[in-house]
Amino acid sequence: MKNLLVQKYGGTSVGSIDKIKKIAQRIVNIKRSGKHIIVIVSAMGDTTDTLVDLAHQIHSNPPSREMDVLLATGEQISISLLAMAIELLGEKVISLTGPQVGLKTNSTHKRARITDLDDKRVINELKENKIVIVAGFQGIDANDDITTLGRGGSDTSAVAIAAGLNADKCEIYTDVDGVYTADPRIVKDAKKLDRISYDEVLEMASLGAGVLHPRSVELAEKFGIPLVVRSSFHNEDTGTIITTDERMERTEVKGIALDNNIGKISIMEVPDKPGIAYRLFSMLANRNIHLDMIVQNTNRAAVNDISFTVDDDVLQEALEVSQEFAFEVGAQKVEFDKGVAKLSIIGTGIVANPEISSQFFETLYNLGVNIHTISTSETKISVLVDKNLAKNAMISVHKAFGLDQ
Amino acid sequence: MKNLLVQKYGGTSVGSIDKIKKIAQRIVNIKRSGKHIIVIVSAMGDTTDTLVDLAHQIHSNPPSREMDVLLATGEQISISLLAMAIELLGEKVISLTGPQVGLKTNSTHKRARITDLDDKRVINELKENKIVIVAGFQGIDANDDITTLGRGGSDTSAVAIAAGLNADKCEIYTDVDGVYTADPRIVKDAKKLDRISYDEVLEMASLGAGVLHPRSVELAEKFGIPLVVRSSFHNEDTGTIITTDERMERTEVKGIALDNNIGKISIMEVPDKPGIAYRLFSMLANRNIHLDMIVQNTNRAAVNDISFTVDDDVLQEALEVSQEFAFEVGAQKVEFDKGVAKLSIIGTGIVANPEISSQFFETLYNLGVNIHTISTSETKISVLVDKNLAKNAMISVHKAFGLDQ
Repeated sequence: MKNLLVQKYGGTSVGSIDKIKKIAQRIVNIKRSGKHIIVIVSAMGDTTDTLVDLAHQIHSNPPSREMDVLLATGEQISISLLAMAIELLGEKVISLTGPQVGLKTNSTHKRARITDLDDKRVINELKENKIVIVAGFQGIDANDDITTLGRGGSDTSAVAIAAGLNADKCEIYTDVDGVYTADPRIVKDAKKLDRISYDEVLEMASLGAGVLHPRSVELAEKFGIPLVVRSSFHNEDTGTIITTDERMERTEVKGIALDNNIGKISIMEVPDKPGIAYRLFSMLANRNIHLDMIVQNTNRAAVNDISFTVDDDVLQEALEVSQEFAFEVGAQKVEFDKGVAKLSIIGTGIVANPEISSQFFETLYNLGVNIHTISTSETKISVLVDKNLAKNAMISVHKAFGLDQ
Repeated sequence: MKNLLVQKYGGTSVGSIDKIKKIAQRIVNIKRSGKHIIVIVSAMGDTTDTLVDLAHQIHSNPPSREMDVLLATGEQISISLLAMAIELLGEKVISLTGPQVGLKTNSTHKRARITDLDDKRVINELKENKIVIVAGFQGIDANDDITTLGRGGSDTSAVAIAAGLNADKCEIYTDVDGVYTADPRIVKDAKKLDRISYDEVLEMASLGAGVLHPRSVELAEKFGIPLVVRSSFHNEDTGTIITTDERMERTEVKGIALDNNIGKISIMEVPDKPGIAYRLFSMLANRNIHLDMIVQNTNRAAVNDISFTVDDDVLQEALEVSQEFAFEVGAQKVEFDKGVAKLSIIGTGIVANPEISSQFFETLYNLGVNIHTISTSETKISVLVDKNLAKNAMISVHKAFGLDQ
């Protein structure tokens, strides 16, 4: 649809009646500037936590389908209140739940994937000149059951709707005013980026710089929808635009990311038989445990050490699987280390630029930071370092690449 | 469907996590006794009030459609929590919102009327041996919009579903243990009735004995569904069954009702022209004001006094209309009186039994209670008396008809 803007406001942006009224005014101003507008909202503030707590007072492991019925009420409350606030300002408006907006998903409750958008209703409402307010994070499966999309769900709803209706862009309003060269809480000199590519922001997200969930960025890239990250509290700031990288061949470091929430597991003296690593990784995959940096060292003939990192919150489970594996194949020992952190530099094409990688390693060397493991991709170089040295290293690397300028 | 029981639990019955767990146990016990069971629930305790308050913090007169989107979340929370509690006890269960259960309504938001029940889904779920938990008070209109049913909505949902599926009976669980001969808070000797007819309970409801909303009783009568009113806090008590009156010709007083929440309006010296009363009543009807006891006295030639009673909460509005009418037709004066109450005796066929009416009037006469107005129907006799004498009169009349035995 021509001249269509999609906006998404997160839970802190609709966290109180006053904030809802402010956002209503902002939306009405945009509408009056002559645009069609669809607004996706999350649940107010800590509503979702309150609902989860209610469920856990009843059941330690509530059935997923019923959890989705419960959680979906959070966004349903926000959309109705925001619609009321907009109506009060004199604009035509309608709220739509995930099922009403036609966001079809598979039936994997609590982390459903979007399969389709039936856009008939939303197009009709827009044609009647209404502002359309949509409950994020929720959809409907083939049985007419309510589903929720899991982590990053509201951002993903927004991008899916922007893609389905071919919007000009999708603006994600949050409590930060854009994408930064590094986490400003750690690196005081971090600078907001005006522009970054999908691939770069994807790497930043997956490397622990938690601006946007990778799902929403992947979807935006797939459908070529420009994404804008900006603050709902500062009207003047235009945020960061995420789009395709149009530069030719130029490579530079765009940002530095640090992930402290990881643990390293090492399985020592694994007999070197064909298919043995595959066996471990499939056992972990079956438990839905995502591995990150993987290293396999051959110590001596026919015996390997295998190390990998996982997120903190699955460390316990990954250890259990590793013990089981070690027992099964006759490995000697399983160790874990929570004292490591992953430091990454991000930028399209940087791995192909030897100046950048050598500058990165040299900076760490000069600081006396030991590198445990290295992992690279087209758009990032990550190293595993001691956690207690990681923040200082991040600040120095940020400076070394001139990102504080 | 054979062997099907429909139950409805009100807001106080699901007012806390503990109460939800208790009700879950009760439902599971019934299921294990070999019945199909559908349970309709209201929103927990004061959830609805909290939601209404949120809306009013934004908008003094929130749009009805959005109000329904907001209010429907209350029941959606209860059904998911109750389903979780039942699942924990090991029974198969599914929660369904009003839209999911196929309760079709017209589009009069905030007080929608049920037009149809699409029972395919609920039958399928019952056939899979699941306990079905349904959000009361809500449905869906032809545009796929969420509607709510207004006063008595959850009871009406329950009866509509019981009727649509031809259930054996519909049990309404509430905080009282049945229908009483009179309000036990006023008449200490009031007795619980084991059995009462639809017509009698309808009169009691409309005369201020607020056990069940007339809508649900009318629907139950229309489809011949036996209704049971009972307490969710006492397992042993079987409550009151409401069904057709199968006795032949026997008439007796079943209950006494008192309505203190009324006001009387008198329009004095209305010129006696044809159609003039009709004009007043249609003006009131246009504002959706329901009149109750109407008296027209001809004082002298060509001049009338017209009096009627209305509910307290529309007294102000009814007065405005009456003033307007008085001005228009040249009546001399409009008065109102909040010092009256309506006392009624209820029982099928009592109006045709002169012994009953004379006993009623004699009791009031002996107490020195002056009767302002009398109104009768097939199943009730109502009188308008001074409010300050009404409670004592109620107790005496209750005794006079032997209802304390």
